[in-house]
Amino acid sequence: MGQNGQGIMPGMFEFTLHSKEGQARTGVFSTPHGALQTPVFAPVGTQATVKLLTPEHLRGIGASLVLSNTYHLYLRPGDALVREMGGLHEFMQWQNPMLTDSGGFQVFSLSNTRKVDEEGVTFKSHIDGSMHRFTPERSIEIQNNLGADIIMAFDECADPHDEAYIVKAMERTHRWAERSLKAHRRPDQALFGIVQGGVNPGLRARSAEFIASLPFPGIAIGGLSVGETKEEMHQTLEVVTPLLPEDKPRYLMGVGTPEDLINGVLRGVDIFDCVLPTRLARHHAAFSPEGRLNLMNASFARDKRPIDETCDCYTCRTFTRGYLRHLIVAKELLAGTLISIHNLRALIRLMEQIRGLIEAGVFESQAPQLLAQWGNNAKRQAKDEKA
Amino acid sequence: MGQNGQGIMPGMFEFTLHSKEGQARTGVFSTPHGALQTPVFAPVGTQATVKLLTPEHLRGIGASLVLSNTYHLYLRPGDALVREMGGLHEFMQWQNPMLTDSGGFQVFSLSNTRKVDEEGVTFKSHIDGSMHRFTPERSIEIQNNLGADIIMAFDECADPHDEAYIVKAMERTHRWAERSLKAHRRPDQALFGIVQGGVNPGLRARSAEFIASLPFPGIAIGGLSVGETKEEMHQTLEVVTPLLPEDKPRYLMGVGTPEDLINGVLRGVDIFDCVLPTRLARHHAAFSPEGRLNLMNASFARDKRPIDETCDCYTCRTFTRGYLRHLIVAKELLAGTLISIHNLRALIRLMEQIRGLIEAGVFESQAPQLLAQWGNNAKRQAKDEKA
Repeated sequence: MGQNGQGIMPGMFEFTLHSKEGQARTGVFSTPHGALQTPVFAPVGTQATVKLLTPEHLRGIGASLVLSNTYHLYLRPGDALVREMGGLHEFMQWQNPMLTDSGGFQVFSLSNTRKVDEEGVTFKSHIDGSMHRFTPERSIEIQNNLGADIIMAFDECADPHDEAYIVKAMERTHRWAERSLKAHRRPDQALFGIVQGGVNPGLRARSAEFIASLPFPGIAIGGLSVGETKEEMHQTLEVVTPLLPEDKPRYLMGVGTPEDLINGVLRGVDIFDCVLPTRLARHHAAFSPEGRLNLMNASFARDKRPIDETCDCYTCRTFTRGYLRHLIVAKELLAGTLISIHNLRALIRLMEQIRGLIEAGVFESQAPQLLAQWGNNAKRQAKDEKA
Repeated sequence: MGQNGQGIMPGMFEFTLHSKEGQARTGVFSTPHGALQTPVFAPVGTQATVKLLTPEHLRGIGASLVLSNTYHLYLRPGDALVREMGGLHEFMQWQNPMLTDSGGFQVFSLSNTRKVDEEGVTFKSHIDGSMHRFTPERSIEIQNNLGADIIMAFDECADPHDEAYIVKAMERTHRWAERSLKAHRRPDQALFGIVQGGVNPGLRARSAEFIASLPFPGIAIGGLSVGETKEEMHQTLEVVTPLLPEDKPRYLMGVGTPEDLINGVLRGVDIFDCVLPTRLARHHAAFSPEGRLNLMNASFARDKRPIDETCDCYTCRTFTRGYLRHLIVAKELLAGTLISIHNLRALIRLMEQIRGLIEAGVFESQAPQLLAQWGNNAKRQAKDEKA
């Protein structure tokens, strides 16, 4: 029994480990909308849609878990409306597992006016400037209304290098985790707790131990990929995951690049999500084993090859780089659709490959090669994101 | 033998009439990329893509013929590049029949600086202001490079109410038709002639007789849907189609609304194309038997019905009006994709229905009812297009 003594639906939210190699593991997490094979990468559908893609496209690329954002859906169209329309799965017609975040991260990153107190956060909508308030109880109520299979405790994500504030934010996150558990009402939703603590190993250990002591069926690692170095991210994971129970899935929020996924799985992470593959796609950048390609480049104008000759996605099976470049230059939005299909498939296929390697017991030995191949895609990130 | 004595591929571009009812007819037009069941509505893929849709989507809605624009492709990415990439079908991966226009209409409608002389037209690119020149020979060369199954003679489309100029433009169009025929090189492409003459019945009759006397395997009716009244369009069709050979397909260019399709088929037209269904879709307007719906309207926020309960398209089988309205309000471009799928399917399904009615010999008796139903969609056009 977990989750506020109301229990969980029988047979639901069990996490069965299949194999382990070092810290890396494969498993299956059962949800009311089907079983998730882990490690898994979740495309992000911020406003109840993965931008430019239909649910048919998502099925075609082998997506299993889709994330949507509580902050955005609360503001528009409103969680009450989504509930009235039958919940998020029914609304957007994604009948496979879904996850919503708590809204906390967006309140801290998107809303320019906000005031945090012990009870919650008051913030200004980025859409119309109206004032709103989230508390742990309200965030859980909204997520109960949205109806995703996996929902998140309300947390405070602070600047990872502001040591003095990080302690306060972490302690508040712990109190909010307990309040989130108390507020949760639906046995068909798994409420995950979130470990915070910036990049301070001592704080991260305290937070991991505290969150692990609560009856959450899964545990997220928050506050990473927010400005720290890759080394700090890796060290933090190395402190946290060994302190978490083996029999609960671990979710590294908002990460990442192909390189980050490989490094995360090596350090015991089971679930990832990130807007990067679709955001890059809308800016003409495609993942490939040659490194990240900027398909607007004139050198692709007459290139008859697909983005990635080894890729099995619709885009790579169908279209040349030359055609994609034409769509980009002609400002045809279909380019964003087609490159999104490829970039998401690339990460989902990478995760399928990693699961196979872990099950064969060769992931750790092959990881350097995978990192060398996919590292090129990460390296170009800094430049792309500045542009 | 037609087309400059070079003939046509054996068995290609034969038009077999299946049934007739009054002026309306059903038939099959054979092309190197498959047989077209007529009457047919062709979605427009201006820049080698039907905006926001993949070829898979187009197959899913039963599209058979797709139009692309010579003016746009000539400017970007260039016809030589398209040829190098294997031609238009290969480039955009549409392996079914395609049609390109001659570029004439766009030169007259999109380019703000142009100078017509007997040889051709000099114009300024709407993209970068560079100067270009089209002649009948150059238009055919470009269309030969693009490689569509059906290509068009280079013509001059004049203001339908400028009587003095209309005669000159029509006579020039006739000379250009002969030059287009002479310039045409590919036996795997059917070159269609174009009837002009504004809304003057005498001129239209002269033009129809002249174009019909040339060895074109199909004949288009140009210069309509450019500012004339519906009555003028109908009267013009009633003058022209009886003067055209029965055994060649007739193509009414750039038309239209559901109402226009019904009225066109009643007057002997076999092929239509129009940007309207996809352009409306990107502006949130959906065809329906209740009339054109503006899906941004707040009244749809909680509407659990599909756009059209009788429609078999992916959008209607899958999504509610409420969800589509959310996508529109949240500025998610997937709305344009999903409504385009529906609007195109609505016209293609209307054509399928009309073919069945003609074959059953009941189209003329059912046409008033069809017009009453679909007329609502046309009526709102004036207002929508002003907005």
